[in-house]
Amino acid sequence: MEEENNVTSTSPHRLRHRKRSSTEVVLDGNPSPLLVNDQNKYKSFMVRTYSTIWMIGGFVMVVYMGHLYITAMVLVIQIFMAKELFNLLRKAPEDKCLPGIKHLNWHFFFTAMLFVYGRILSQRLANTVTADQFLYRLVSGLIKYHMAICYFLYIIGFMWFILTLKKKMYKYQFGQYAWTHMILIVVFTQSSFTVANIFEGIFWFLLPASLIIINDIFAYIFGFFFGRTPLIKLSPKKTWEGFIGASVTTIISAFFLANMMGRFPWLTCPRQDLSTGWLHCDADPLFKPEPFTLPAWIPGWFPWKEMEVLPVQWHALCLGLFASIIAPFGGFFASGFKRAFKIKDFGDSIPGHGGITDRMDCQMVMAVFAYIYLQSFIVSQSVSVDKILDQILTNLTLEEQQALFTRLGQMIGYS
Amino acid sequence: MEEENNVTSTSPHRLRHRKRSSTEVVLDGNPSPLLVNDQNKYKSFMVRTYSTIWMIGGFVMVVYMGHLYITAMVLVIQIFMAKELFNLLRKAPEDKCLPGIKHLNWHFFFTAMLFVYGRILSQRLANTVTADQFLYRLVSGLIKYHMAICYFLYIIGFMWFILTLKKKMYKYQFGQYAWTHMILIVVFTQSSFTVANIFEGIFWFLLPASLIIINDIFAYIFGFFFGRTPLIKLSPKKTWEGFIGASVTTIISAFFLANMMGRFPWLTCPRQDLSTGWLHCDADPLFKPEPFTLPAWIPGWFPWKEMEVLPVQWHALCLGLFASIIAPFGGFFASGFKRAFKIKDFGDSIPGHGGITDRMDCQMVMAVFAYIYLQSFIVSQSVSVDKILDQILTNLTLEEQQALFTRLGQMIGYS
Repeated sequence: MEEENNVTSTSPHRLRHRKRSSTEVVLDGNPSPLLVNDQNKYKSFMVRTYSTIWMIGGFVMVVYMGHLYITAMVLVIQIFMAKELFNLLRKAPEDKCLPGIKHLNWHFFFTAMLFVYGRILSQRLANTVTADQFLYRLVSGLIKYHMAICYFLYIIGFMWFILTLKKKMYKYQFGQYAWTHMILIVVFTQSSFTVANIFEGIFWFLLPASLIIINDIFAYIFGFFFGRTPLIKLSPKKTWEGFIGASVTTIISAFFLANMMGRFPWLTCPRQDLSTGWLHCDADPLFKPEPFTLPAWIPGWFPWKEMEVLPVQWHALCLGLFASIIAPFGGFFASGFKRAFKIKDFGDSIPGHGGITDRMDCQMVMAVFAYIYLQSFIVSQSVSVDKILDQILTNLTLEEQQALFTRLGQMIGYS
Repeated sequence: MEEENNVTSTSPHRLRHRKRSSTEVVLDGNPSPLLVNDQNKYKSFMVRTYSTIWMIGGFVMVVYMGHLYITAMVLVIQIFMAKELFNLLRKAPEDKCLPGIKHLNWHFFFTAMLFVYGRILSQRLANTVTADQFLYRLVSGLIKYHMAICYFLYIIGFMWFILTLKKKMYKYQFGQYAWTHMILIVVFTQSSFTVANIFEGIFWFLLPASLIIINDIFAYIFGFFFGRTPLIKLSPKKTWEGFIGASVTTIISAFFLANMMGRFPWLTCPRQDLSTGWLHCDADPLFKPEPFTLPAWIPGWFPWKEMEVLPVQWHALCLGLFASIIAPFGGFFASGFKRAFKIKDFGDSIPGHGGITDRMDCQMVMAVFAYIYLQSFIVSQSVSVDKILDQILTNLTLEEQQALFTRLGQMIGYS
C-alpha cells in the first residue's frame, strides 16, 4: 500500500485536520514533528511522485522489450530484495566475529536461484539451442542432474554452516540461518511464480502487477480526499474510505484493462523458448471477443444493449477482487513486521518510497495468486499435454524424441 | 547420532578414565554429577536399550505390513515431531495473551499436510477407485483444484495471523510465524520425500533408514570401546574412532543389506495404488543378479574368484557413504540447535532417548538424499519411449494426443 511506508509522507486523515487549523503543531494529542514543516512535506511528496513516474516509465519500457527483459528485471529486483532483507536483522558486533556469514547467505541465494530458474530457463534454453549438438547435450545434462546438483550445493552450505558454528554465537547463527531460509522462500516463491506467469504470456504478469499499482495509487488518492475512518491498527494511516474507493476502482479497471491488454498478441501469446523475436500464435479462445447481452436491470437510458467482451475479462474481475481485498494484507504483514523489529523501511533504494521490498509487499502476494489462479482455472485444461511434453524433453535424447514422434504418428493414424 | 542426546548416558571417553580410577568423582577437571551414581547410569543404559529394541521391533512389524502402514507411521511421527517443535520456542506468559496461536500453528500444519499428501495420495486413490464413477469424479476434482484449495487455506491462515496481531506482541508473533514455517518446511520436506520413496518400493525407504540406524548404533559401540579423540566441539561426546568405525561398518552393511533386501519383491516393486495386497512385478534390472569377477588385487587365498552381485548394490555403496559421512551433520545441526536454545532434548516421548525429533535428525537428511539420488541416478534412466507412449495412450484423449503430436513436431523441428 502506498501510504504507509514513508513515514515522512502525510496522513490524509491528519491532513484534513491540518487544513482547519494550520497553526497547530500538536494535532490529535500526538506531537507530530512531521507536520510542522510544510516545505519538507511537499518536497517529500514531489520526490515520491517523481520516483513513481520513473518507475512506471521504466516498467512500461521493459514490458515493451519482452519476456527475457522482464525476467531479467524480476531477477534484479529479487537480488536487491534479498540484499535488503539479508542486512535487516544483521548485528555488526556479531558479524565481526563471523567473517563468512555474508558469503554463506549468498551461497544459499545462488543455490536457490539455480534450483528455481535452472529448470524453467534450461527447458526453454534446450528449445533454443537444438541446432548445436554439444550445447544441447550440455543443457540436457544440466536438466537431468539439475536437482542433484542443487542438492549437492545446498549440502555444502549446510556443512559449511555447521563447521563454522562458534561458541556463544550459536543463537545468532541459527537465527541468521532461519532468517536466510525464510527470505529465500518468500523471495523465490514469488519471483519464480512471476517468471512462470511471464512465459505463459506477458498478460498474466502485467495485469496483476498493474492492478496492484492501481490499487496502491487509488487507495492513496481516496484516502487523501475522503479518508476519515481508520482501517487497521497495524497501519494507522490506512482508512476504510481509501480501501473501498480503491477496491471499486481496481475491479472496474481490471475489467477494462483486460479488454485492452487482451488484444495484443505480444501480451497474450505464451513464449516457449528464450528468443526475443516477434510472437505469433492462434489466439486462445479466452482472448476472442464474444457478444455479451447486458442484463435486464440495466436502466433503459443506457445507450448499449450488447457489448463485445473477451472471456478473459471475467477472470480479470476475480484478479481485481483479489488485488483489492486480499493483496493489501501483504502490505499489512510488512507493516507489522517493520513495527515488530522497529524498522522504518526495508531499505533506501527508491527515493521517497523506501526500499524495493517496501514496494513489492502486495506484488508478491498477487503474483502467487495469479499463478495459482492461472494454473487451476485456466491452463489446467492442457496440463497433461504439457506435462508429457516436459517429460519428453527432459528425459529423452533427440533420437528418442524423433522415434517417439514417428511411432505416435503411426498410432494416431497420421503420417 | 546415538550418543549425544541423552545427557544421562556416559561418554565413552570418560568411561575409560573411570575404569582406571573408579573412586574419583571429578574426572577431567569438570565435576560430572552424572558419573557419581553408577546405578543410575546403568539403569539409563537399560532403559535406552529397552526402548531401542521396542522401536526396532515395531519398525520391522510395520515394514512387514506394507506401504500404507509405513506411510501412516511416517505421518504419526511427523505429527509428534511438529508437536515437539511447535512447543519448543513457546513462552507461557505470551501465549496467555494469544489464545488462538496454537490453533493457527495446526491450521498451517494441516494445510501443509493437504498440500503435500493430497497430491501423492489422491493420485493413487484415483487409481484405486476408478470403478465408482462418483468417487472418481470427486477425487479428480480434488486433484485438479488441489493447489487452489491449499492456497485458499493458506491465505485464510495468513489473514488470521494478521488480524490477530496484538500490540507489544508483534515480535513474539512474527517469531512464532517464522518458526512455524521453518518447522513445516523441514518436517514436510523430509516426510514427503520419505513417502515418495516408500511408493517407489519399500527398499528405497528401508535401506536408507536402516543404514542410519546401523551408523548410529555402531558409532555408539565404537565410541564406547575405542573412543579417545573428540570429533567436533558441538557434540563433545562424539569421537573420531566412533565416526570412522561406524562409517566402515555402515558402508559394508549397505553392500550386503542391499543384496538381502533386493531379493524380496515386496520390498523392490513400486506400488501404484493404495491397496495393501501382494505385489507382483517384473524385477527391475537393478535387482537381477549379475556375475561379478573380483579384481586382481584380491589375495590368492580368498576362496571366491567370482560372485553374484545385484547392480543395486553399487548404488547402496553411495547411500552408505552418505549415511556415514554426511548424514551425521543432521545430528550436529540438532546438537547445535539444542545448545543455542539451551534445550536438553526436543521432547520426552521415548524413554531414554528424548523426543522423537532427537531420533529423526539424521533420518531427515538421509531421506531427502535417498529421494534425490533415486530420482536423479536411478528412476530417470528407465523413462523410455515405450513408457511415455503408454502414458500418452492411457491418459490423453484423442484430441490431446493430436495436439501433443503437433507440438512435439514443432519442437523437434519436424512439420
